[in-house]
Amino acid sequence: MKITSKDGAGGRKMQEFLKDVILDIFGPSSVGCIGLDSLDDGASFGEDYIISTDGHTVKPVFFKGGDIGRLAACGTINDVSVMGAKPLLLTSSLIIQSGFDLEDLRTIMRSMKDACDEVDTSLVAGDTKVVDDNIGIYISTTGVGERWKGLDRNMEIVRETREYEESFVKDGGLMPGDKIISSGTIGDHGISIMAQREGINLFGDLRSDVCPVWDVTKRALAEGGVTAMKDPTRGGISAALNEMAEKSHCGIVIEEGLIPTKRPIVAAAEMLGINIHDVANEGKVVIGVRGDLAEDVLEAIRDSKYATDASIIGEAIEGKRVFLKTRIGARRLMNTPDGDPVPRVC
Amino acid sequence: MKITSKDGAGGRKMQEFLKDVILDIFGPSSVGCIGLDSLDDGASFGEDYIISTDGHTVKPVFFKGGDIGRLAACGTINDVSVMGAKPLLLTSSLIIQSGFDLEDLRTIMRSMKDACDEVDTSLVAGDTKVVDDNIGIYISTTGVGERWKGLDRNMEIVRETREYEESFVKDGGLMPGDKIISSGTIGDHGISIMAQREGINLFGDLRSDVCPVWDVTKRALAEGGVTAMKDPTRGGISAALNEMAEKSHCGIVIEEGLIPTKRPIVAAAEMLGINIHDVANEGKVVIGVRGDLAEDVLEAIRDSKYATDASIIGEAIEGKRVFLKTRIGARRLMNTPDGDPVPRVC
Repeated sequence: MKITSKDGAGGRKMQEFLKDVILDIFGPSSVGCIGLDSLDDGASFGEDYIISTDGHTVKPVFFKGGDIGRLAACGTINDVSVMGAKPLLLTSSLIIQSGFDLEDLRTIMRSMKDACDEVDTSLVAGDTKVVDDNIGIYISTTGVGERWKGLDRNMEIVRETREYEESFVKDGGLMPGDKIISSGTIGDHGISIMAQREGINLFGDLRSDVCPVWDVTKRALAEGGVTAMKDPTRGGISAALNEMAEKSHCGIVIEEGLIPTKRPIVAAAEMLGINIHDVANEGKVVIGVRGDLAEDVLEAIRDSKYATDASIIGEAIEGKRVFLKTRIGARRLMNTPDGDPVPRVC
Repeated sequence: MKITSKDGAGGRKMQEFLKDVILDIFGPSSVGCIGLDSLDDGASFGEDYIISTDGHTVKPVFFKGGDIGRLAACGTINDVSVMGAKPLLLTSSLIIQSGFDLEDLRTIMRSMKDACDEVDTSLVAGDTKVVDDNIGIYISTTGVGERWKGLDRNMEIVRETREYEESFVKDGGLMPGDKIISSGTIGDHGISIMAQREGINLFGDLRSDVCPVWDVTKRALAEGGVTAMKDPTRGGISAALNEMAEKSHCGIVIEEGLIPTKRPIVAAAEMLGINIHDVANEGKVVIGVRGDLAEDVLEAIRDSKYATDASIIGEAIEGKRVFLKTRIGARRLMNTPDGDPVPRVC
């Protein structure tokens, strides 16, 4: 058996790979309430900390809206943020091809630094390897997030209406009746990268959404009632919503007409034959909120510059599937894609 | 300007690269007493924690004495251990070539797991990317270590004879009169990897020393009086000793005849024309100890199966250079190598 690109593509095949290979060997490996077997955005340790790691291999390394440096910082900042932890520090492992341009590297490092500065976090340690392999640059980042005071209040508000023991926000905290918020437009990152690779630029402003979402998640938590959060990266909102539904033991119904999108992104996606629900976003959050508090949370996050297009897109229901109510009123399954239709996107 | 292999080789060129590019952009980035600008084995946060990151790109991925999985776990476990912190958790970022053999991957993951088990630490989070680039597999690991009770007592013992504010063991804690211990034989990893690449196997048991050193550092700390520690990876003991001397604002003199070595490693190194002082070790520690306590620490660590060959190899002196007293009584400078003479060794 050989590793295939789908084993690392964020979809159904990757979930199988993780269970068959990684969890089979490491078991329910944890040092806190959230460990490897949670397959969440990160793991917890020492009461107050979340840790998360992501590798970044995006091609091209410079793309409209960002570069691999901004992506590497934001990818990990966001994994920590969606668990309700304030990004505290970052580490990075640079693997660089011999002959890589030094000025390009400086630009990439400055992008990492700028993203860190946006959320007042620091790169505190790192490592550099130079290789002869034809890779350009890969950047793996690890982030540690610290319990944020607004998180505890949010959890108290959640517990007003349900049994809920967790001390961080997990994927699996939804209950039927919770509303689902998207913090903004969908598909921007994956489609704009793919369009750039294919040389498509007929459709106006196609650019990645890559940004740190801590300001958005913080505002949501401060308002209170957040039951689950996830950043819909590889596999898009299709994968994220299915993971949330499965872990929450409930279903979800999404209204297609309510999902925020950008017209040029939708047009490019149609031309490329790609479902925008299945591709990576790098600056968005899918938020589950107690139904009665959803409008308040929506209003709170819209004050963030990274969530001006936020919208309630659906709700959690009894059952165990994710449905999409289309614009013409049909109801169809929204499945986790096998892999990501746009490879090497993050 | 282009990146060259020496920029990531652990030697003098890499230190210049880190200062010119990384520190120039990120500044003295820290959230605790030890930050990026310390260029130590890791950084500190939240009073009690150390974090460290390393990328691993070794070729071949399976080598005598270990594989990239054991190396990736031990590399980070050791960076945390030499600061006096107990390895608490690991995360890993796997970047795997599409088509990589699944059974090989399982073997590598089991090696990581076994190394974690040896020091009672857990892999709690990770990420997998599959790429088309011809890389085999790269593994970046991050480790978090937690203040160990024996560390505080060690620091108290150090403070009996000097002003010393630090709460973790740093590279730069040496004072003239401190003895320098090597926890075992030198050059095993770099030379055995190079010999394997070159198809040399005339010299008996050439195998990597890759192992977790926590048991060694723990015993040293428990005995007390440890003033500085470093694992001599890329750039070998030459780079490690020079870094310790420079940061400690003192000199070091090493007696060549006291450095533990394996006969087959020395023979292979001579044939390859490589100085064993300049190549990576992956299961060794260089320990600075208060002179009057050095014999006790030596005896304590020799009880560990990973330090049976430990020896006092020299001492810190006034000045600012590292000298080697050769077997024939000459005294010559032991400089930080420009790079590592064996590339892609970790």
